[in-house]
This record gives sequence, structure tokens and C-alpha cells, in this order.
Amino acid sequence: MRTPRIDLPVAEMPRRWYNLAADLPVPPPLGPDGKPIDPAALTAIFPENIVEQEVSTERWIEIPEEILEILLRWRPTPLRRAYALERHLGTPARIYYKDESVSPAGSHKPNTAVAQAWYNRQAGVKRLTTETGAGQWGSALSFACSQVGLGCKVFMVRISYEQKPFRKVMMQTWGGECVPSPSTETRAGRAILEQDPDSPGSLGIAISEAVEAAISDGSGETRYSLGSVLNHVLLHQTVIGLEAKRQLELAGETRPDVIVGCAGGGSNFAGLANPFVPDVMAGEPIEIVPVEPEACPTLTRAPYAYDHGDVAGMTPLLAMHSLGHTFVPPTIHAGGLRYHGMAPLVSAATAEGLMHPRAYGQLQCYEAAVTFARTEGIIPAPETSHAIAGAIDEALKAKASGEPKVILFGFSGHGLLDLKGYEAYFAGELENYPLPEEVLARSLAVLEGLPRPDRS
Amino acid sequence: MRTPRIDLPVAEMPRRWYNLAADLPVPPPLGPDGKPIDPAALTAIFPENIVEQEVSTERWIEIPEEILEILLRWRPTPLRRAYALERHLGTPARIYYKDESVSPAGSHKPNTAVAQAWYNRQAGVKRLTTETGAGQWGSALSFACSQVGLGCKVFMVRISYEQKPFRKVMMQTWGGECVPSPSTETRAGRAILEQDPDSPGSLGIAISEAVEAAISDGSGETRYSLGSVLNHVLLHQTVIGLEAKRQLELAGETRPDVIVGCAGGGSNFAGLANPFVPDVMAGEPIEIVPVEPEACPTLTRAPYAYDHGDVAGMTPLLAMHSLGHTFVPPTIHAGGLRYHGMAPLVSAATAEGLMHPRAYGQLQCYEAAVTFARTEGIIPAPETSHAIAGAIDEALKAKASGEPKVILFGFSGHGLLDLKGYEAYFAGELENYPLPEEVLARSLAVLEGLPRPDRS
Repeated sequence: MRTPRIDLPVAEMPRRWYNLAADLPVPPPLGPDGKPIDPAALTAIFPENIVEQEVSTERWIEIPEEILEILLRWRPTPLRRAYALERHLGTPARIYYKDESVSPAGSHKPNTAVAQAWYNRQAGVKRLTTETGAGQWGSALSFACSQVGLGCKVFMVRISYEQKPFRKVMMQTWGGECVPSPSTETRAGRAILEQDPDSPGSLGIAISEAVEAAISDGSGETRYSLGSVLNHVLLHQTVIGLEAKRQLELAGETRPDVIVGCAGGGSNFAGLANPFVPDVMAGEPIEIVPVEPEACPTLTRAPYAYDHGDVAGMTPLLAMHSLGHTFVPPTIHAGGLRYHGMAPLVSAATAEGLMHPRAYGQLQCYEAAVTFARTEGIIPAPETSHAIAGAIDEALKAKASGEPKVILFGFSGHGLLDLKGYEAYFAGELENYPLPEEVLARSLAVLEGLPRPDRS
Repeated sequence: MRTPRIDLPVAEMPRRWYNLAADLPVPPPLGPDGKPIDPAALTAIFPENIVEQEVSTERWIEIPEEILEILLRWRPTPLRRAYALERHLGTPARIYYKDESVSPAGSHKPNTAVAQAWYNRQAGVKRLTTETGAGQWGSALSFACSQVGLGCKVFMVRISYEQKPFRKVMMQTWGGECVPSPSTETRAGRAILEQDPDSPGSLGIAISEAVEAAISDGSGETRYSLGSVLNHVLLHQTVIGLEAKRQLELAGETRPDVIVGCAGGGSNFAGLANPFVPDVMAGEPIEIVPVEPEACPTLTRAPYAYDHGDVAGMTPLLAMHSLGHTFVPPTIHAGGLRYHGMAPLVSAATAEGLMHPRAYGQLQCYEAAVTFARTEGIIPAPETSHAIAGAIDEALKAKASGEPKVILFGFSGHGLLDLKGYEAYFAGELENYPLPEEVLARSLAVLEGLPRPDRS
């Protein structure tokens, strides 16, 4: 009998995170003066233990036991063999997907949410602020804060808040508070609303609000938490790839030929792919493919530059592919992929030619999602559908060439809170939003005058 | 390090279902003439292979390999130790829960949906009709039909259709069609709408519609599928209890002292509890507790009688606890528990004193659900919250008496599609609906003149 699932025993749960920064140095964050910032300057936003991880170049970092105890509720997650999808496509490829949808919040996000909440509590912090796009991150952090006993306030991108009305209730059930962004609670939010009272919001705006809310809280007991982009966030996600590597071995595979994942801020993607990057550096023929929406083509059409992580320019300058920090992408349903920048580690790996990004329109992604639901049985998040579209393309290429390629893709989350997007898709109401040249050019203008990363 | 999860390896997946009818004979279904019906008469509704299982008194029935291959996507499901909830309650009890929320449809329902869809396809059936309350069953059958290649039409109780707008989209994503019931598509539906155009619907009404739609389809290729109540449905669910038994052993427990589950039609409850009933019959001190809503107190306040499974009286008479087949319960959010009857096997076991039912109001259940979400991290379905309320009561009793009781409860499904109920709960809009004596008396009147089961 064929087993569609490769489980890893609890005893084989990874005990260490893998830090790609040890093998792929990234240019340092810069302050307003254009000089590398002193890590101590970050402690207004993050606690010291997190800042330490953010700048660490240690290859392996031990996972504290109390964090493991919480992660073990759903980890190791299943690696699944997509027999039904393979049969439907008639491909000789062997398709595997790492299923992060089994977490309580339904995505990969709790991997870092639990770690960040725990480190903050260790540092004496009492509550966290954050932003969320599609709501996956805000839900995950609300869940994590309930587990370690912290308060949680979430600024949710307004368009997603309206598209996904139950995300707020989900956060509330875990004790979190969720407000639509831009809000009137911060100076950053009020400034946006003055210019555009109907602003759909963006991750860049919501980050500005959450950072401001953390810094301006007089108690000193509030810090900010980011769900993607930064090194320490990607670090916490590497359990995904470390488990997948071992599970592929158990399935009898030498290595994946192709690794596909969706990339918004880059954390789910890097969590799966980063543990394989040293193999690529060592010459293994593994193609690593981040997939992004053509409505927000950060890796495929934006330069590798220094830019702010938020719209108000409150964060340090990060070396990353960026569409410009004032870019507000069209309101596609994959809210988690609507970010102007990309994780410095993923950006550097792409700039070095270690990753080969690709962009798709949302119609192709929804088509792939429905095919997946009707074969493999799990309803994907709109973000995840980008990875599926990429994997299907690779499987069809393998069919055309007759090669039995091993495809590994990241199933970052389920879409049970995102059914409104499916409803619109079935009703024929969705369209693609390829980014027009002139909009791109206007958006990239904010990068002029900012420093460029040294790629020598 | 404590492991909050007891996994069963794929190789230990049960290969046989346990049939309680072998150890606890139930009175036969009766026809309109009051005489036991010929099983052949059921083949207008169900295919022969299903009818055979329905009337079987074999103790063990082998699970076909193709069904196992689909079940293995998510089975064996985790048994979880509720360390966080125990700590929160300060109880010496050891609380375990069997987590059926990990299936693609988010509940235990796919266990029988997959089996029924497969047997129907084997019998040459092309499409299934069914009813659904909260939507868990309709979703599960749509999922199952997509897996084996059948069409699927779901009549969904109107109040739930309105409370849970995204269930329809979920079914549609799997290729199923969902219409609110009462509908104008059947004679049964039109008759109800004539009397009450604003009817909130009930499972009894929706069953009438689905049965009529199957029988009246001229092609002869359509059959009906029921998500609970009947013997073969309960049979398919016994993988839950069989796995849990083995997992408790792996956790070092001799036996559970108490087993708690929510009971609507009885299938999730029996799936967990039935494999333990022979132990109770053999004298083991295990208390088995079905929990139902006080708004629909089938086991706690209704007689053991013969009654129809549907409002229009289209089904045979079943020996069961029943509030009367015309009973329309208040619109509590636990839509899956709004059924006038109870599975004959659970009813017989209760009548025999092998099970000890209990009823709770929905406010206590939502309170338990929020406590659970904030400790154990998973957001429960409103139905499941009844099991949690029961388990918490047992844990607090153990605290009062100082006994380290072993409590096993059924976590039948997650509530990610039921967040509207949580929203209403947080807004203070919910109330309890204890069933008034006079309403009960009026409802039971339809049982007069029907035969009573022989309990000699």
C-alpha cells in the first residue's frame, strides 16, 4: 500500500535552527546616516536576545526546550507525496510537499511566533505589537502570545481586514486585539488617512503603525514583532527545511531537483529552502524557485537596493530587493505576498544566482489551487497557491521532457479563512494585475539617493 | 522534555472497523406497516454493499485498501495530552483528547464520507445527495466525492447556511453543490416553505429533501448518503476509538476512567466510545459520557422509542431516543447537534445503562471553548465545545476529590469555519435555550401511536 505521508517521529524533531547568514554574509542594516547601525539601537523595538539572533553569524543555534515543547504540538509536520496530483497531471515527476497548514493557526507562521513570544517574555516584555497582511501572521502571534502569557495588538492591512472578516475573531479568541490599518491610533496611520481616507493599506503602512505603537508606549514593556523579512524570523522557520530534508531521505530520495515556495517577505520560502542552499553552493544540482505575484514582483522586477522596511521610513535601511517603500500593491487575495521588499537573505541569495525567482498572475494560481483541492484534498491559502502553480509548471515540464524529477514545494498554509477569494474566483470576478512599467518606475524613484549594497 | 502528542505510526493504522452491533443487538428498523423491513427495500436509497454493512452483526469488518490509502493522508490522528489545560485548571487529572480536526475537512466526518463515497462508486453510483447541519458533513462528503470521482449535492440547514456563509464555497472548491434547505427543489422543502417561508430548517427537513432528491432522480445513478445515526456510519468512525485505545497504551495508561464526547446524531461519539463498550460490559470501570445541548436534549429528556429519521417520515422507523421527528430545535451555533434523534447504537447503549448522557447550555460550552483555545491553542467547533465542557467538569471533579483520573475526550473538529458564533459570544449576544416542558411535551406527541422498542 502506498503511503501518501512521510512522518518524522517526535524524537527526530530538529533541536537547532540553521542560520544561512553563516554561509552567505549579507550587507549590514544602515542607520539614517547611511552607516551600519549599532545593534543596540534596535533594542527600542526588539529585546536584546532577539537582536543578538538577528545579527548572529553562528551556523547553528539551539532551540530552547520550552519552545520545542510548544512546537511539538504540531511539529514535525508531515511531508506529503502528491500521488493524486501526479496522476491528474500525468507527470513522471515525484511531487512532495511540506505541509505547514497543520499548525493551530493554519500556517508556518507559529514557528517564529512562538519563538519570538518566548524570547520576549524571557526579556521581561509584557506585550507585543505587530502588523498582518492576510491575517496569518496576526493569528499566529495571537496564538503564540496566549501560549506564553503576553498581550498582543495587531494592525491588519485594511483590505485584508475587509476580505477576511473572521481573522479578527480568530485573534480575539486567542486573546489578541486586531485593528484595521491605516488606523487613527498612530501618527503614521493618521498621515495616510489624511491623504487617502479610503486607503486599502499595505504591509509597509501597518509596520509603521505597529513599530510606532511599540516605541511610543510609555511603559517600556511593549516591543514589536515582525512576521517575516528579518534574519531571526527566517532562522526560526528553518525547522521546515531541516525536517523536509530528513523526510526526503526517509522517502528514499537523494535530493530534490527543484524546490518551489511562495515568497512575500520570504520567511516561509527561506524556512524551506535555506537549509538546502549550502548544498547548492557545494555544487548539487538543485534549482530553488521563489514564486511571487506579478502584482508585486519584488524579486523579478525590482533592483537589489537599500530600502526601508516600512512606508514611514521608521526602520533601518535593509539590503534587499525592493519595489520602493511607498509601493502599495493591487488588492490581490494573497495578502501575505503584498510586500514591497524581500528578506535580505533571500535577496542576497537571488542576487548571487542561488535562487531563480518567478512571478505568476492570480488567475493561474487560483486554477492551481482548485486543481490541488480536488486532487490532494487540502484547500490552499491564496499565498500557497503560488507555490502550487510553480510546482505544477515544473511537473508539466518534467512530463514534456520525460524526466522523473523530484519536486519539493512548500505548502505554507490552508485557505479556510480565505474562502472569500475562492468565491470571487468562482464568480469570475478576479483579474490579473501585471505591474505597468510606468507604475514600477514611479515606485522605484524613492530608492534614488539611497545607498546601494556592495556586491564585491 | 514532555511530549504533548502521542503519534501512532502509519503502520499501526487500524485495518478493521469495530461493529458494536455484534455485542449489543439493536431492535430492527421497521417499515410503514410496523414490521421489520426487508434490507432490500433500502437499496432505493443506499447501494447494496452499504445496506449489507448497515445490517451486519460481524464484529470486525475489513477496511478496503483504497479507502485506507485516502484515510492515511491524515490518519492515524494525534492523541494529545492537554498539559496546558491541566495546568490552567490545577487538576490532578490526566486529560487526553483525540484530535479529528486534522482532516482536510477539519472534522471526523471524512472517516465515513470517504468510505461511503468509495462503496457507492464500487456499486456504480455516479452522484450522492446529502444533508448538512453546521456544514461539517457536507464539506466532508464534497471532499470525499472529489477523491473518488462522484458528483455531490448538499442540502444545508438554512440557519447554518446563513451563519456559516463560507461552507458553501468550501464545498464548491471540492466540486460539490450546496443549496439552503428548505428549498424549492423538492416537494418536502416546498411543503415546509408553504407553512413557514422563514423556516430556519432542521436536519430532519434537510434529510427529507436529500432522500427525495436521490429517489426521484430518474437516472437510477444517484443515491443518498447520511453523515451520522446509522450503524454503517458509526462503524466507519470506530477508527477513532481503536487508535485512541492503542495511543493511551503507548502513553502508559491502563484505561481511561472517563470518556467524553459530543453527541448530535452520535457518530463522532460512537466512533470514539464504541470500541470501549465491550470493556465496560466486561466490568471495567469506565464512565462513558455523551454530551448534548440542553436546547436539543435527545438522550437526557426524550424516550427510547421508534421514530422516523426525517421530518417527512420518508425513512424507516428507527429504535432510538427521539424528541419527535417534527422537532425543530432553537438556532444554537452547534448546528451539528440540532438533530431530533440519536443513533440506534448509542440509544441502545444508553438505554442499557452503558452510557451516561449529560446536557449543557451553549454559554458554558463557549466559555470552555475559549479556555481551551487559550491553553491548548486549537479553536474548537461549537459542537466540540460540548465535549470540552464535559471534560473540564470531570477534571474539576477530580480536582475536588484529589483523584488523578484519566479523562479521554473527542476533539471532533476545529471551529475555523464557525467563527461567527465566537463573534456573537464575545459580543454577549448568545443565550441558553433550555427546552421548556410544554414544548417538549408537544414535540413528543408525534411518537404516540408509533411502536416502542422491545427491551426484554
